[in-house]
Amino acid sequence: MKRILTLVAVLLTAHAAVAQQAIFQPKQVVSPEINPDRSVTFRLDCPKAITVQVVGDFLESGVKYTTADLVQGEDGVWTYTTEPLEPELYSYSFLVNGVRMLDPANIYRNRDVATWTSIFIVSGKKGDRGDLYSVNDVPHGNVQKVWYESPTLGLTRRMTVYTPPQYEKNTKERYPVLYLCHGAGGDENAWSELGRAAQILDNLIATGQAKPMIVVMPNGNCNTEATPGEWSAGMYQPSFGGGKFPQPKATMQESFPDIMNYVEKHFRVLKGAANTAMCGLSMGGGHTFHTTKMYPGKFGYIGLFSSAVYLGNRSDKTPIREQMATSTEFQKEMAALFAAKPKLYYIAIGETDFLIDSNNALREFLDSKGYPYEYFETSGGHIWVNWRIYLADFAKKLFK
Amino acid sequence: MKRILTLVAVLLTAHAAVAQQAIFQPKQVVSPEINPDRSVTFRLDCPKAITVQVVGDFLESGVKYTTADLVQGEDGVWTYTTEPLEPELYSYSFLVNGVRMLDPANIYRNRDVATWTSIFIVSGKKGDRGDLYSVNDVPHGNVQKVWYESPTLGLTRRMTVYTPPQYEKNTKERYPVLYLCHGAGGDENAWSELGRAAQILDNLIATGQAKPMIVVMPNGNCNTEATPGEWSAGMYQPSFGGGKFPQPKATMQESFPDIMNYVEKHFRVLKGAANTAMCGLSMGGGHTFHTTKMYPGKFGYIGLFSSAVYLGNRSDKTPIREQMATSTEFQKEMAALFAAKPKLYYIAIGETDFLIDSNNALREFLDSKGYPYEYFETSGGHIWVNWRIYLADFAKKLFK
Repeated sequence: MKRILTLVAVLLTAHAAVAQQAIFQPKQVVSPEINPDRSVTFRLDCPKAITVQVVGDFLESGVKYTTADLVQGEDGVWTYTTEPLEPELYSYSFLVNGVRMLDPANIYRNRDVATWTSIFIVSGKKGDRGDLYSVNDVPHGNVQKVWYESPTLGLTRRMTVYTPPQYEKNTKERYPVLYLCHGAGGDENAWSELGRAAQILDNLIATGQAKPMIVVMPNGNCNTEATPGEWSAGMYQPSFGGGKFPQPKATMQESFPDIMNYVEKHFRVLKGAANTAMCGLSMGGGHTFHTTKMYPGKFGYIGLFSSAVYLGNRSDKTPIREQMATSTEFQKEMAALFAAKPKLYYIAIGETDFLIDSNNALREFLDSKGYPYEYFETSGGHIWVNWRIYLADFAKKLFK
Repeated sequence: MKRILTLVAVLLTAHAAVAQQAIFQPKQVVSPEINPDRSVTFRLDCPKAITVQVVGDFLESGVKYTTADLVQGEDGVWTYTTEPLEPELYSYSFLVNGVRMLDPANIYRNRDVATWTSIFIVSGKKGDRGDLYSVNDVPHGNVQKVWYESPTLGLTRRMTVYTPPQYEKNTKERYPVLYLCHGAGGDENAWSELGRAAQILDNLIATGQAKPMIVVMPNGNCNTEATPGEWSAGMYQPSFGGGKFPQPKATMQESFPDIMNYVEKHFRVLKGAANTAMCGLSMGGGHTFHTTKMYPGKFGYIGLFSSAVYLGNRSDKTPIREQMATSTEFQKEMAALFAAKPKLYYIAIGETDFLIDSNNALREFLDSKGYPYEYFETSGGHIWVNWRIYLADFAKKLFK
């Protein structure tokens, strides 16, 4: 350690390269600071600012541009302390003279489509929601980015794969698989970054609340190969809908066997419906809805989170209830799906989610046919706060 | 695709969650825009700013806080266009009324210790340096983060492993291994992010300039388990030297067999010096220097990049040349290392690097003993621009 510290001293006195300069700035404030009472203090060292505000989802969830003012101290540092916060992963940014920027004292940040936000986690005690999203001193699964061939799409594509703790050690053991799908604007990094999937699984497995499982996070934008910047389209600006790229050759559900083929060939998986789950959020809930009814008997556990529930053609203006009541194709597919007796058909959504009506329509259809399902309604809307809750809840129910 | 676009329309008109708001902002400027003549235009939509500047390593490499002024147009958007730039990966940030922030229109960014910078790549033609750092339409290797036991350090630790294209397909084939070490302030993510290691290897392998190889990027901070935020120490602010954590139980070189044991057990590697290379930058060059002489005959290819060359005790004020001339332990180790006839001992450094004198001392020692080595001197100093160049140069020489 002494050797390392001496080297640091050398580096600190050395001629600094541009990319490393900011560390040599005079004052290093701590921001955010999570206080013992679960209040949070933000600090920004910006002596010449006229106004500094913080905007974040802890202020008033779901309300646009709710801000709180930071106050400048005699040392030039601006501060603001929140009320005690509930355990959660929170997102925020600063407005300095009205200009949005991230907290320069906080290296932790998430990207959602084209927007970065600073993040922090509040946790009060073991097992609360903040703890569940934290990296704890428990065995960790490995996360890899793998490239696979999708003949159906004519593309080489990337996905994220989580293998549970001990997967490398227990070379004879096979594991069940959860396919976990992102929403519009996301990609194969969304669940592992915004969704804290590896942390949730590590923590649930460590406490015996979830079975050890492989979690596969594919890319649901069938006209792209991978997350922006990680394939040959260059460093483009992401947008909802995949932007400028040519239309895909096939849908997610049509190309889904390519994903499963790769996973079943390259990982030690347990096959069959009892060992295969699929879930997704929003567009990925739609992918789950369509894929699971296209391949009845393949998936024993099915989870729709804030799901984009629609039938064949979304530009069809016919009300969803009428479509469900009249489409013989839909009714046949659902009959086949439930004839195969999936162990769990799970629908979760927030009470203010803009997609709740079509989810209600689906529930009414399931009720009318006597198809069993579980329903989980939370407060809030179409937000990651809810999707992390749904993943944790759903994962506990799998493969048991 | 039509389905996806309709969903987008639904989402755009929906009640937006805080974390997704920024995408709904009125004007979306393109920044940075790489122009056909390799000049680059920066844009910031910030009507009320008084001054906007850009600071970046393309302005005058290595000079602190060289800035260029953006000029405001009638639409409120600030712009600045550079001279045509040489092919390279560049870093920059904006100063808005003197406050540093990243480019909000550019999602691409790198973290170096505690500082994020926006990045972009300029490339003029196939095979130039910018092209080498880009994700091209070539076969890609897979990148994984694996946890391994280090009994020597008493820790479970994480490293990054790149496996070359076709590794998954050619299940009978074994591959040589390069151990690639980061510098002080870095971690197991440094080479894969700042260093563009996967892109460099993909592109060199695709063009036949490098042999397919496994690249192992361990964490060289022996008192931590993983990159900040990815282990149980919480979301702390990184600093040079590993900060607040207890002293490690052993050095990097002492614990290095734990890394090799894991890699040789869990990956299909070719063993022996002819198939084993080690290199590193700065502190990681020091790790390479010490590890390779501690285990003579283990490493056939040895690369010191801008290396922290020192002998046993860095607080020893004795001039390095005198230490090398008088330490029988050092001389014995180097004699054993070169008696095993490594295929390549490679020293690379920039002409203004603050570590050049100790590297010169090492070269004088090697010359005095007649130990063969290659020397590669570039312009510039202790910067990632040079380390990417050295990796590409070194990788081409391996396992041939």
